[in-house]
Amino acid sequence: MNTIQLAEELKRGSRRALAKAITLVESTLEEHRAAAERLMDAVADSEQQPTLRVGISGAPGVGKSTFIEALGTRVVGDGHRLAVLAVDPSSRMSGGSILGDKTRMQELSRTDAVFVRPSPAGSSLGGVARRTRESVQLCEAAGYDVVFVETVGVGQSEVAVAEMTDLFVLLLSPAGGDDLQGIKRGIMELTDIAVVNKADGELVAAAGRAAADLRNALRMMRPRSAGWTPRVLSCSALEQRGMDEVWHQIDAFRTHAERSGLKSNRRSAQSVDWFWHETREMINARLLAEPNVAALAESMQHAVVERRISVSSAARRIVDAFLGSQRSASLQEASSTKRVQK
Amino acid sequence: MNTIQLAEELKRGSRRALAKAITLVESTLEEHRAAAERLMDAVADSEQQPTLRVGISGAPGVGKSTFIEALGTRVVGDGHRLAVLAVDPSSRMSGGSILGDKTRMQELSRTDAVFVRPSPAGSSLGGVARRTRESVQLCEAAGYDVVFVETVGVGQSEVAVAEMTDLFVLLLSPAGGDDLQGIKRGIMELTDIAVVNKADGELVAAAGRAAADLRNALRMMRPRSAGWTPRVLSCSALEQRGMDEVWHQIDAFRTHAERSGLKSNRRSAQSVDWFWHETREMINARLLAEPNVAALAESMQHAVVERRISVSSAARRIVDAFLGSQRSASLQEASSTKRVQK
Repeated sequence: MNTIQLAEELKRGSRRALAKAITLVESTLEEHRAAAERLMDAVADSEQQPTLRVGISGAPGVGKSTFIEALGTRVVGDGHRLAVLAVDPSSRMSGGSILGDKTRMQELSRTDAVFVRPSPAGSSLGGVARRTRESVQLCEAAGYDVVFVETVGVGQSEVAVAEMTDLFVLLLSPAGGDDLQGIKRGIMELTDIAVVNKADGELVAAAGRAAADLRNALRMMRPRSAGWTPRVLSCSALEQRGMDEVWHQIDAFRTHAERSGLKSNRRSAQSVDWFWHETREMINARLLAEPNVAALAESMQHAVVERRISVSSAARRIVDAFLGSQRSASLQEASSTKRVQK
Repeated sequence: MNTIQLAEELKRGSRRALAKAITLVESTLEEHRAAAERLMDAVADSEQQPTLRVGISGAPGVGKSTFIEALGTRVVGDGHRLAVLAVDPSSRMSGGSILGDKTRMQELSRTDAVFVRPSPAGSSLGGVARRTRESVQLCEAAGYDVVFVETVGVGQSEVAVAEMTDLFVLLLSPAGGDDLQGIKRGIMELTDIAVVNKADGELVAAAGRAAADLRNALRMMRPRSAGWTPRVLSCSALEQRGMDEVWHQIDAFRTHAERSGLKSNRRSAQSVDWFWHETREMINARLLAEPNVAALAESMQHAVVERRISVSSAARRIVDAFLGSQRSASLQEASSTKRVQK
């Protein structure tokens, strides 16, 4: 099947084509990259209906799997088609904690309305994030109008997820105020909706206190999204209580974000940032692919460490060598053209 | 005075030459940039004695000015020559809060043993950080063997400071445990020595409790520097009590870091990172300096936002146009050479 056929089948909603397309964009092989680009171009303008991208983060142990399953059921019940993707550069190393549990999402992914995809393999967060951004667009092109992008709270992955979604939901456990110290302030600043899960059994009161603490903490911060005060809710994903309100608030955010222009502005800014990031990465890859430039970079690293040259001069030599090698390639080409003309 | 003369005078320890040299590296004019590079090359291997770079951070109100003055007096008393630099991209906008107080450091900077320089102007943290890195090397070349790089706790500036120094000192005020929530976890993870200031008057007991809380918090984290357990101290910079112990622990860190190789390894890694960062920035600047590439980038941004093209394809067009424009410049050159030869 060629790329155009694949794009056509995907747009008709084929799950098999979607899975295949995601595998293609996840590949790091250079020839796959070219095909992936053609594929992405083919689906670029295929967003037929407004979609919603929801980032969901939570530390291990907060019950994220159960939460996503319960919320997903609610979403599908409203007539939406749901895709669930994951961003976690370390998931393969740690044994695939994200979406790795085969018994999970069973209820959901049995229906045609739900598409679930675990985190792509990849050593760097940047690489994983790029592929996930592309997967989001593929899912939307295949008719999934709500996309969850989930991550476990490690390092910078929450920031990456917030930068590819319309709103960010932070899931927490009902621990005391002491535990709130463990949440990075930076993560709180990303949060549009905070949800205290496990508000059941003996933990109901603790969940209420945690929610109050969170409200206080969020009040001290500047809201992330203009015109939207971050909400703090509690729920029991296990007992499926409070899920209606969670979905209701996500929907309220959506209404606000679509009416105010926040959503389209955010998506535009995200696209521009992604475009520049991609451009820089591509130039960097080309630079390292030139054997003589890579060799010079190696020796410049040593020179800089041994202080035989200043960092600026070393960088300038690399840049000149790189852009110069493009020049000498052209000169060679020009002179060989001359020879041929003779 | 030309650049080589400036470098010579600076190496002889001239304060005027040092001040002039820093002004040169802080300049954003392209012709100054070339001279600054020659200057940095000229001082590159001039580190005659082992030096120590200390990052110091603290939120507004913790008494950082008084602390630096008291610690600086102690450092100079031990026979060192001390330079104090600041990293704060927003300092000019906020009225120059860092090192801006003319009455400060008076005692210190009257002597020849101390050189004080406020934060350079600059909109981006990256720009400010680059210039401060260069200023650190200039100060060392001028014979200042201890360099303080201070920052106020805003955004990513602590990370930038930690990435250009040998150890990181975090200054805090003696507030209760509640206040510790305000410290970003990321900052704690950078800390080699935490110091609770204002342990005087009514605040002595509170300072002790804050230090105990900090010790608990730090115990939960992986130490930043191999073989070094982060220390938590308290002091009163105002009454000049506890400063001996602060300096003693900084010195203990230095001994450990020099014997274990930590210091030279860290500096090597910092240089390599800086070199690559500089290389990327330089290529980016060259790309934006090509009018036709910049124009294409502008139209690609729109195309990406309007989803007329995929991000990868848009980025590839820019990269091809940029590297191709280097090619066509060469081809033009080659053909004009041909004409001249005729």
